[in-house]
Order: sequence, then structure tokens, then C-alpha cells
Amino acid sequence: MISPSPLASRRTAVRHAMQAAGIDLLLIGPSAGFRYFAGRDAILTERFVALGLFADGQEIVFSPRLQAPLYEGLPGLAVCIWDEAEPMLSGVAAVAQAAGVKTIAVNTEFWSGFLLQLTALLPGVSVVPGAALVETPRLIKSEEEIAALQAAADRIDAVWSRFCAMTPTMVGRTELELRAVIDGLMREEGFSEVSWVDVGAGANGASSLHHGSDHVIQPGEPVVFDYAGCFEGYYGDICRVAVSGAPDPEYVAVYDIVRQAQEAAFRAVRPGVPAQEIDAVGRRIIADAGYGERFTHRLGHGIGLAAHEGPYLVAGNTQALEPGMTFSDEPGIYIPGRFGVRIEDIIVVTQDGARRLTQSPRDLVRLS
Amino acid sequence: MISPSPLASRRTAVRHAMQAAGIDLLLIGPSAGFRYFAGRDAILTERFVALGLFADGQEIVFSPRLQAPLYEGLPGLAVCIWDEAEPMLSGVAAVAQAAGVKTIAVNTEFWSGFLLQLTALLPGVSVVPGAALVETPRLIKSEEEIAALQAAADRIDAVWSRFCAMTPTMVGRTELELRAVIDGLMREEGFSEVSWVDVGAGANGASSLHHGSDHVIQPGEPVVFDYAGCFEGYYGDICRVAVSGAPDPEYVAVYDIVRQAQEAAFRAVRPGVPAQEIDAVGRRIIADAGYGERFTHRLGHGIGLAAHEGPYLVAGNTQALEPGMTFSDEPGIYIPGRFGVRIEDIIVVTQDGARRLTQSPRDLVRLS
Repeated sequence: MISPSPLASRRTAVRHAMQAAGIDLLLIGPSAGFRYFAGRDAILTERFVALGLFADGQEIVFSPRLQAPLYEGLPGLAVCIWDEAEPMLSGVAAVAQAAGVKTIAVNTEFWSGFLLQLTALLPGVSVVPGAALVETPRLIKSEEEIAALQAAADRIDAVWSRFCAMTPTMVGRTELELRAVIDGLMREEGFSEVSWVDVGAGANGASSLHHGSDHVIQPGEPVVFDYAGCFEGYYGDICRVAVSGAPDPEYVAVYDIVRQAQEAAFRAVRPGVPAQEIDAVGRRIIADAGYGERFTHRLGHGIGLAAHEGPYLVAGNTQALEPGMTFSDEPGIYIPGRFGVRIEDIIVVTQDGARRLTQSPRDLVRLS
Repeated sequence: MISPSPLASRRTAVRHAMQAAGIDLLLIGPSAGFRYFAGRDAILTERFVALGLFADGQEIVFSPRLQAPLYEGLPGLAVCIWDEAEPMLSGVAAVAQAAGVKTIAVNTEFWSGFLLQLTALLPGVSVVPGAALVETPRLIKSEEEIAALQAAADRIDAVWSRFCAMTPTMVGRTELELRAVIDGLMREEGFSEVSWVDVGAGANGASSLHHGSDHVIQPGEPVVFDYAGCFEGYYGDICRVAVSGAPDPEYVAVYDIVRQAQEAAFRAVRPGVPAQEIDAVGRRIIADAGYGERFTHRLGHGIGLAAHEGPYLVAGNTQALEPGMTFSDEPGIYIPGRFGVRIEDIIVVTQDGARRLTQSPRDLVRLS
């Protein structure tokens, strides 16, 4: 899916960034960062695996023998194998020592246990966070990546339209039954991973910790659906609300506030605007309507090779938006004990504004 | 499932171990270690969550506001909340500073990115591996835990006997179809998590990296099944081989060697024997039969709140076995391009030997 040449360019670019920052070795364990630079998944277990990018140009996957076939043959990457009975970090330590490594950066998710084993083998080496090297380049998606995210969003939309078409009413069905339907449709649409399918009816929709239950849907009870998954390496994510029967008029009013906040945030997106400003635009509308305390989370998260990544649309993130950034726009209002509303789309920053990747209608869905 | 008092005892015991080792704070992120000390799961995401056990007696879950309801009400644990727009590690840093923390231990899986953020806030603090605090106490299972592992093993066995009973022949079916059957049975038997279901027929059985494919099972083709899952918090794991039709006589002979190695390793288990010796016993039988190079992995792994944990039965692990340790006994022989054999049971060390938790017949299974 990812041709070798962009991978080599990514690694060359990060090597230049490492040289500029005085970092001799970047270690990336199994994670979206590994996929970004190596072009394939790595397996996260108690057996140490990492991609090592050295400032001197060496590019090596350190792998247990059992997993080596996964990495052998990846263009441009050498494989350094450790055996079952060997100390897992001795290979990395030996190469680092020979290369005169003084400063190591690691990806955010890198296990501390591995890092502490490594630094014990390399006295005097210093360790710095690798986020600026591993995560920053991923903030701006290439055209190829945006096409991959569009494909994932198209499947997310297809799941929703098929679900709505096959559900004349939700009344009498349980949250878990509806969740199983969405899960099945996601697999039919080709998602290799279903990251989550959260279904919350009525008061259950007010908690992001509610994933589904045996609760039977009642007439007029709004049901919040939030689901995400990985399609050919890139993630899709959406949230919509449906109701069977007549909803409480207050619900319709609150829904409309969230709808306006989501639209206003979308319209505020353009290159140069700080990420936190998009959050503030959505939040202001909800606060002005008197529900400020009920919008309990950030407005959105970046999406790409991971379901959640930068840029985060949250107060305090002053980073300026740039064309090619992709993230969710998902304000919400949650009234504990009563109901919740959240509307989520995935959007991409364009040269002069933004475009939605998910295109499902944003009105409250009536399933009879 | 876990009553509060063993949790409090575990935390008291680790506090004494911390005091003895001069460790002021033990931080445990979402992992089996978190479950062991807090009695429930934590959610692993980009939002920082950890259990902080302080040598001065403070026991605090550091949580994002959205997840706080998960931890509020856990007996004996305080909750320290950080807000969406706050630096995630500032709460831990403030409490650590007030408590005069000088040395911090972290669990093996703790994200380096979080650790580096924390140490940047606490100049002069030193960090040490927390494995001896978090993993060592989990090596010896209590009677309650052994009962939980027995329950998981019983369900693993039930899945296998049901699968065999409902499969008059495997011929003509694909690996992925058989995998889906096992997966469905695991869910029916109450597994909350299916960790893996690997199905490999013929040459596919020779690779631990093969998880299943559209390959159609042929008469006489041995099929290796390895599956594991979490039942009420504890893991079960097994490997068996079945064949429909007459297998190659060499396969039957190789199967018998693995069967003998698995049995000999089982019989070698008793308190006081070093973990590596069990591996050596199984390996010797396979090597003596001329297949030493084809047994490409350690003999076994511990199992409990994680599918893989200590003790590892591998050359170099000199740790003496003790009553209450639970691990897999799973030698194998793999002939690339031809076939694989692996037989796996979960066993527990008793006062004078060992007992199998999984009890499925260990003969090569004939499905007509």
C-alpha cells in the first residue's frame, strides 16, 4: 500500500532533523510511528522490537528471531536479530556503542523497561523525547495519505448509511445488539481493526465510559453511536445520534446547539489558525447557550496512522493549523442522568479552509 | 471478583519492598500490574493514567477527568484528576515534590514519553525499573488466583472439546473458517477478550507468524490450533493439533517426540528447579531426536493477569520454581515448508511437583 520511496524520504528527513537536534539514535517501538517509517506493523509484546534510525545513516530493525521474517526484505532496512536466550537489548547497545551514540530519542509509547535496560548498558548516554521527530512529521498528511483517510471515511459513511437503511426502528433492541450490527458492517466494509463501537441510549449517552449494555431502546430515546476502525492502515471515526419515535423537545434544542458548534468549528478551520482557537469557537457557542460546563472534553483529535494523534484541538495547543492536517471536529453536551449529544466528523485542512472527509448527514437521524 | 482486602495487602507488601529498596514512588500505568494492585483495568491511550504508590503510604490514581468515574470508589485509593487543558503530568509531579520523592520506579510497559515529561518536572529525581516490585509478586499465585486460572483453563478445554465434537471433518474448510468457529466458541464460553486464535495447516503450521488464511484444509494435513483469551480477569492458553485423514508417518513420529518432550518437561517441574532447567529437559529430548535446530523458541511463559508474564522458561533464567507459579509447557518442532508441531498446556507448580490446568487429551486429534 505504501510504496518504498516515501518511506525512504521520511527516514532521510528525520535523519536531517536528528542531525540538526544533535540526536544520534532514534528508537521507535511498535506503534503508528513504526508504521510511518518502516511501512508495516510491528508486534507489541514482552519481546523487544524497535526500528533504530541512526544519525550516521544506519537503519536497522532490532527483532527477536521469531519475528525477523516480518522485517527481512523491507527495502532499505537491515535486521539485527536477538535470540531467545540473549539479553534483548544487547544488539542495540552494541551497535549504538560502535556508532558512538551519545543522545538517544525514543517514541512516546516506548516501554520504560526497555529504555532502562538500554541505558544501563550505555552509561553516560542521555535520553530525550522523540515526539518532535516521530509525531511532528505525521501532522501533515501527503495527498496519498489524505486519499487513504478519505477511503476510510467513505467506509465509515457506508456503515452508517447501511445501518440506517436496515433499521426500521431501534425500539425493543438492546445497545449491544445494535453494536454488534455496526461491528459486523465494519468488518464487511473491510476494516481490519474495529477500534471501538460505543452505543449509548438515553442517559447512557451522557458518559464516554459507556460502551454498550443490555439496555432496551425505548421510543423517543436518543442513541449515541461512536465508532472507529482501521481501513488499509488509516483510521476512520464518526459519531452520530439516532432516535426512534419522538424525542424530548429539549433534546432537539440541545442537539441543534451542538450542530451549530460543530459547524462553526468547521468553518473556523483554515491554515494559520491556532488549534486551540477551533476548540474555543465550538466551546463559545455551547457556553453562550448555557451548557459550557456540559462540554467536558476537547473539541477534537488528529487522526491518521493512529485513531488518536496530533494535532489535538484543545485549550493550550497554540500550534498553527496547516494544509494537510486531519482531525476530528466533535463537540458534545452531556447531561448526567438524562442524555448526551455528540456530532463528529473527520476534516482536512485545505489551502483556504477545510473539507469534511466523513459526509453522513449531520441532522438527528429519525429511524421511524 | 477480587475482594478489596487482598488488594490492600498487595499494596502494603509492595510498600515495604519499596522502603527496603529506597524507592519513594512506584508508578504503574495501564497494564496487568495496574489490575494487580488496583483491582480493575485502566485505559491505555494518549491520556496519562497511572496508579502511584508512595513509600509514605499515599495510594493515588492519577486520571484524566473523563476517566475518573472508573477509579472513584476503589477502596483505599484516592483519585487525582487532571483536566483536558492541563499538563498531564503536573499532578503527579506536585504530589511527588510535596512528598520529597527522590527515586521513582515504573512498570515495564510505562510509556517513556510520560516518564520523560515527569523527570523534566522533577530535576534530580532518579528512575529505576519497577519489574521487581510489579512483576515479582505476581509470579506466585494465591489459591484464589489459581482457581481463577483453573476456571479459564476449563473454558479453554470446553472450547476445544466442543470444536472437536462439532467438526466431523476439517477437509474443504479454510483456516479462517475454523478460526472463526473457535473465536465464536470462546465468546460463548465467556471470554471477555480473545487474545489470539492462530490456525495453521500443513506448512503454515511451521510459522508462529501465521495466524490464518484462505488455505483450504486437505486430507491428511495436520492443523495447529493455538488460542488464548481472558476469562474473568485471568488468561487461558492452549495449543493442539488435529488432522482429518491419514497424516504423513513422519508427522506422527515428530508429533510423538514433541509429546515426549512436553511430558518430560512437565515431570521435571517441582519447587527449587531453575526455570531454565525445564526448558533444557524438553529441548534435550528434541535435540536427541535430531530436531534441536527446529525447536526455535523458549519452552514456556508465565500466565496470570497477562497472557505472557514471568516466569519465562528459557535458557538463562536461573530463577528457582516455587509452588503457585503458573506457566505454559509448549515445546515444538517446525520444518519450514512442510509442517509444525506444538503441544501446549498450562501448569501450576505444587508442593511436590506440578499439575496441569488444561486437561484436553494430548494425542494427535483425529477428526475423521
